[in-house]
Amino acid sequence: MTWTLSNQSLQEQDLLNSESLFALGNGYLGVRGNFEEGYLDGTATIRGNYLNAYHDIVDIPYGEKLYAFPDTEQKLLHCIDAQTVKIYFGEEEEPFSLFTGEILAYERLLHLDRGFSERRIHWKTPAGKEVKLHFRRIVSFVKRELFAIEITIEPINFSGTVKIVSTVNGDVANYVGVNDPRVSSLHGKLLQVKQVGFQDEYAFVIAETMTSKLKTACVSRHFLQNTDYKQEFLKSDAQVKVTLTTELRKPITFTKWNIYTDTLRHQEHVLDKGFELQQAMQTLTFDDLFAMQKQYLDDFWEMADISIKGDQSLQEGIRFNLYQLLQSVGRDQFSNIAAKGLTGEGYGGHYFWDTEIYMIPVFLLTKPDIAQKLLLYRYFTLEAAKKRAKEMGHSQGALYPWRTISGTECSSYFLSGSAQYHISGDIAYSYIQYYLATNDVDFFKEYGIEVLVETARLWIDVGHYHEGWFKIDAVTGPDEYTCVVNNNYYTNAIAKYNLLWAYKANKLLKEKDLAAFFKLSYRLAITDEEIEEWKKAGESMYLPFDERLHINPQDDTFLKKAIWDFEHTPKDNYPLLLHYHPLTLYRYQVCKQADTVLAHFLLEDEQDFDTIKHSFDYYEKITTHDSSLSSCIFSIMASKIGYHKKAYDYFIETARLDLDNTHGNTKDGLHMANMGGTWMAIVFGFAGLRIKEAGLSLAPKIPKQWERFTFRIQYQDRKLEIQIDQQQIWITLIEGEPLKIKLYGQEIFLEKKLQPYCF
Amino acid sequence: MTWTLSNQSLQEQDLLNSESLFALGNGYLGVRGNFEEGYLDGTATIRGNYLNAYHDIVDIPYGEKLYAFPDTEQKLLHCIDAQTVKIYFGEEEEPFSLFTGEILAYERLLHLDRGFSERRIHWKTPAGKEVKLHFRRIVSFVKRELFAIEITIEPINFSGTVKIVSTVNGDVANYVGVNDPRVSSLHGKLLQVKQVGFQDEYAFVIAETMTSKLKTACVSRHFLQNTDYKQEFLKSDAQVKVTLTTELRKPITFTKWNIYTDTLRHQEHVLDKGFELQQAMQTLTFDDLFAMQKQYLDDFWEMADISIKGDQSLQEGIRFNLYQLLQSVGRDQFSNIAAKGLTGEGYGGHYFWDTEIYMIPVFLLTKPDIAQKLLLYRYFTLEAAKKRAKEMGHSQGALYPWRTISGTECSSYFLSGSAQYHISGDIAYSYIQYYLATNDVDFFKEYGIEVLVETARLWIDVGHYHEGWFKIDAVTGPDEYTCVVNNNYYTNAIAKYNLLWAYKANKLLKEKDLAAFFKLSYRLAITDEEIEEWKKAGESMYLPFDERLHINPQDDTFLKKAIWDFEHTPKDNYPLLLHYHPLTLYRYQVCKQADTVLAHFLLEDEQDFDTIKHSFDYYEKITTHDSSLSSCIFSIMASKIGYHKKAYDYFIETARLDLDNTHGNTKDGLHMANMGGTWMAIVFGFAGLRIKEAGLSLAPKIPKQWERFTFRIQYQDRKLEIQIDQQQIWITLIEGEPLKIKLYGQEIFLEKKLQPYCF
Repeated sequence: MTWTLSNQSLQEQDLLNSESLFALGNGYLGVRGNFEEGYLDGTATIRGNYLNAYHDIVDIPYGEKLYAFPDTEQKLLHCIDAQTVKIYFGEEEEPFSLFTGEILAYERLLHLDRGFSERRIHWKTPAGKEVKLHFRRIVSFVKRELFAIEITIEPINFSGTVKIVSTVNGDVANYVGVNDPRVSSLHGKLLQVKQVGFQDEYAFVIAETMTSKLKTACVSRHFLQNTDYKQEFLKSDAQVKVTLTTELRKPITFTKWNIYTDTLRHQEHVLDKGFELQQAMQTLTFDDLFAMQKQYLDDFWEMADISIKGDQSLQEGIRFNLYQLLQSVGRDQFSNIAAKGLTGEGYGGHYFWDTEIYMIPVFLLTKPDIAQKLLLYRYFTLEAAKKRAKEMGHSQGALYPWRTISGTECSSYFLSGSAQYHISGDIAYSYIQYYLATNDVDFFKEYGIEVLVETARLWIDVGHYHEGWFKIDAVTGPDEYTCVVNNNYYTNAIAKYNLLWAYKANKLLKEKDLAAFFKLSYRLAITDEEIEEWKKAGESMYLPFDERLHINPQDDTFLKKAIWDFEHTPKDNYPLLLHYHPLTLYRYQVCKQADTVLAHFLLEDEQDFDTIKHSFDYYEKITTHDSSLSSCIFSIMASKIGYHKKAYDYFIETARLDLDNTHGNTKDGLHMANMGGTWMAIVFGFAGLRIKEAGLSLAPKIPKQWERFTFRIQYQDRKLEIQIDQQQIWITLIEGEPLKIKLYGQEIFLEKKLQPYCF
Repeated sequence: MTWTLSNQSLQEQDLLNSESLFALGNGYLGVRGNFEEGYLDGTATIRGNYLNAYHDIVDIPYGEKLYAFPDTEQKLLHCIDAQTVKIYFGEEEEPFSLFTGEILAYERLLHLDRGFSERRIHWKTPAGKEVKLHFRRIVSFVKRELFAIEITIEPINFSGTVKIVSTVNGDVANYVGVNDPRVSSLHGKLLQVKQVGFQDEYAFVIAETMTSKLKTACVSRHFLQNTDYKQEFLKSDAQVKVTLTTELRKPITFTKWNIYTDTLRHQEHVLDKGFELQQAMQTLTFDDLFAMQKQYLDDFWEMADISIKGDQSLQEGIRFNLYQLLQSVGRDQFSNIAAKGLTGEGYGGHYFWDTEIYMIPVFLLTKPDIAQKLLLYRYFTLEAAKKRAKEMGHSQGALYPWRTISGTECSSYFLSGSAQYHISGDIAYSYIQYYLATNDVDFFKEYGIEVLVETARLWIDVGHYHEGWFKIDAVTGPDEYTCVVNNNYYTNAIAKYNLLWAYKANKLLKEKDLAAFFKLSYRLAITDEEIEEWKKAGESMYLPFDERLHINPQDDTFLKKAIWDFEHTPKDNYPLLLHYHPLTLYRYQVCKQADTVLAHFLLEDEQDFDTIKHSFDYYEKITTHDSSLSSCIFSIMASKIGYHKKAYDYFIETARLDLDNTHGNTKDGLHMANMGGTWMAIVFGFAGLRIKEAGLSLAPKIPKQWERFTFRIQYQDRKLEIQIDQQQIWITLIEGEPLKIKLYGQEIFLEKKLQPYCF
């Protein structure tokens, strides 16, 4: 069983990475895996306590600012820090630290099945006092606002005073990096403390962001079990300090329950709400918390787990990734999944297309209620996207921001930012996928069609007819090493899909629910001519094709450029973006990530198998996978094409990317999209699963390294289990009505019994 | 005679523009036309005192900083302010101001033939004291460091105390604008005062820039003639104040001589040098200054003047423009001509390709010694350009910065900045033009060929062969509404010329001076193969041509884009760059300025007449001339093609652009390149003059609105005068050896006599 992440290293770089790896979260609250007692002075550490979407607004600086460059961006805040608990032993007050004294035993664990992390330490102070310490921390999946710490202290060769000093600190700043465009280099200090104090047994800090004026409060309750103790409260300008002093003769247990509230979810009275939530938990014990957590995770894993027999290391990778996705995904209209989840500050806590293309699929087929919440977030920012389209000179439509928290564009380098118009198509695509996978007609009527309409309108405005084709100029596709091009294959293909579905959805609605159709048409001023215009543009969409190479060129001029000189590029020069000016990259055929290959996955019916295969072969040679969004797609497509070894190799790169820090920046947070990509590489790749209008289909192949793999999905109110070994496939309808699906292109009828199919 | 610029308006906007229009300068020192006595509190004014190339280094901020984006930029400093002189009348100390009391007469003049500005004022104080004031100010063309002010005060109905308070102020800041990418929005305060004081009769201020640590000193001498007076000195942290008090009974004359020195030209001892220069001028009178100034300008105008009979307003325009060019052009290796000369702070005081393409031609044919200095500046920054090429990923060659003062790239928005690789070709082109116009073989051997070699090497590295053609991808041509394209016609054409001349120059050198050739080859490691490589790449250069339209497309995909909807673009939306996001502009066929049309001017022999004509017709329809560098080129090409009305209309737009503030931003400084363009539109346009390897040629046409126009040029050690009226052309060899030239394609032989030719 691989349900536990373990790491004992105290090396500085490992500790930094572990802060991300051992992060806890519940989609609302995120806490990096920092040590309660702190580090040696000067040790690099990124202390992080985040509330999803809780942000400040900061100015974006420009050397030369052009029209419609966003003035400001949102930035996820490092919020009030409640992690710190220092412990002092004896009259000499020897502080507990893993960097002094002697470590007799040390173990650090994250329990993926139980949802907490712990540290077990057997430690001797410099003066020789021997103690055992056991830290447990939990961010509750059930009690959204709760982050709790429990510390058990057991004396071994010593009895005497122990002093526990716990702080709740509002004097915090965001992490500031240098020379890495993926980390912010400005704006550290954004939180202002408004009030600190004590009330009854609670210590609290209220803080407010500088510009967005969002408030947050942290209300903490401290308790020592198994002993009498003295409690002292002390407040300073920006923090409260609670000191508990007792005589240590037998094991004692310290607990710290922290409740976080903020203006977005709890309106103005963040402190009162904090008290209220604390009071409602007064009777709960730590054991209760663990029990609730276990129950929540049992439900989650029942559907989400992928078991791999035959590779412990990959098994650990996939479970870890799924667990971290669950911890990071927002579940309300204000929030989504940041590029780094709630595990770090890379990319400013912004939401990207990563959500739609790399993460929604996981939730859609395992926990569709969460997928729906993610879609709703986009619906609630539709007005902002329509406003952005206007700013960008479009007469109609919705242009979703490339990166954002509250819905406005936060991208300052538009070439690989705002120019990625495809994000509007990606969002439309995910609404369609949701509809196809859930058959949730009401949701589609209420939200989906409107999003399809407004995104289709964007394509009409941005594109133009040229020699009979509908063409889209001056946009950037997913590949960020090739920017601002004409007729990017990916963009055109997804725009085509978007346009034709906007047409289809309206036609369907008119047919099935005329009243709803009239209501929508009236509200959005949709005309019959407009609907036909979408169809015409979609059907006329230009999809570049090169006869000679029999591939889809990435854009109009891609194939005319020189091919990057990979042979003479030193290994150290990867990722290229950190070693070459963008102009240099734009000048060559070199891809950061899957672009046309990704389009061939998402919209495989646009091209015949040969074109897809030749394109894969072509792009594989010139793709660096400098983006963590790339390998999973190449794995999926290698599976489809029949390159089984490649499929497996690419999969391996995704599965343990953060666990092994292969991109070197795990410290800044985990690569959430890649984590979704691991799941996709198995389900869409090895199992060949697709969700289309025609239904569910599968075409599994199992890597020869594995004995067996098993996963479950939810699909149109049914639960299915798919198990694949080297000989057979079992597809089980666990729950729900019988269903026709396709297996290797052959229709099969699923009933509630185990059905083995041979390869 | 139109040798005087006159303006009496006291409207705020006119005053702001007049600060630029009445600026004085000598290529080293520049002083905006601010009022000595100041303005009403709250009146907008941009006070400016500049030393060419005297700059600080400031950080360039980025929201997302990518590899090789420049960290810092240079910024021309608003330097120590010696302009202020306040005058108080009577016991009540009524301050002189044009915004109080009563103006009985007011006249403000700039003398283009005599090189000074003056204000004559008949004024009554609020209490009724009547005085006449006469301000004269001069920045000497002969005494480079000198800016002098003379004020004559004549009592009319009043006698009593007059107090003159003069300051030399180091507490200055640069102008900071908002929301206009053409003006800096950051970094106001960059000068730190190091010392203020008095020594003998001199008041002085020494200041230093924050980061570049360049020092400057201003040493001022004050004097009152025709009266006894008391002089008081007062110093504060950042300024010195000299108060002269006297009894006003008859006209008195106040003078203030200010000497500016700086580290670049005077090494570390800027103060001592200031004293030394002051002492050397002790015996000079204001009349001496005026006489020297007149002599200098007589020499200048003898060659540079263009006289236009039949249009006073255009005559004023062309003379004003030439005068301002002379005032702004740097004459040492540290300096060049800023986009706004020394008249304002627009574009940070940076030097652009404007110099080579729009201004060097004027000096080359009227004052070649200055043209040579401008070329030398580029030679002295060649090492920086080679370093920049390396940073930008090139294995060899020199990539000149798009904007700079000290030689490093200052462009933060690389799409219409660093991506304009053509600047390296433009610089090579100007070296070739210099060689052709002067036949200065020594200079070409010493400096020119090396520049040709290093720029040719850049093209070899940036380009690549594709289907037999040499192609250049991912660069931006002159048109800034179309960025980062493949095979920009202009860039490819100038690169071709650059490459073939690098080949030719080396072949010539080898033939004529084998020793010099070997020396150069050795120093620059030039091989015979490399020289042949330049020839091959030049001859294989791909120049896009569209068969159907019979034009040169601006780039590979330009013609496939939609044409901008000019019909529905409101007038107020020009210039487009202030109203549309760059992506919107990049998406359409719309040009900010001449691009292919400019290439057809500079390198007219690359294409046949029909292609040039069709291209002009095509691009004219889609060019907004939002850049001040555009109309002059369209005028020249309209002349060539025979569109005489158009040629005249475009010319009119250039000739009075600043005088009439047609671009609305004259306050930020004058449009120097356009000023050169006015001259070019006459000499290259109406007179059809060209300098080629085959020699000098002319093909004049006179606008029907004019009676006659006359200009002179220097060409290969000769002086020529060309006079054109509605019937005839007179070409006079004023000085130098007889010469063959071409007139309308026919060879003629010029001897020293007036030769009329009929149309």
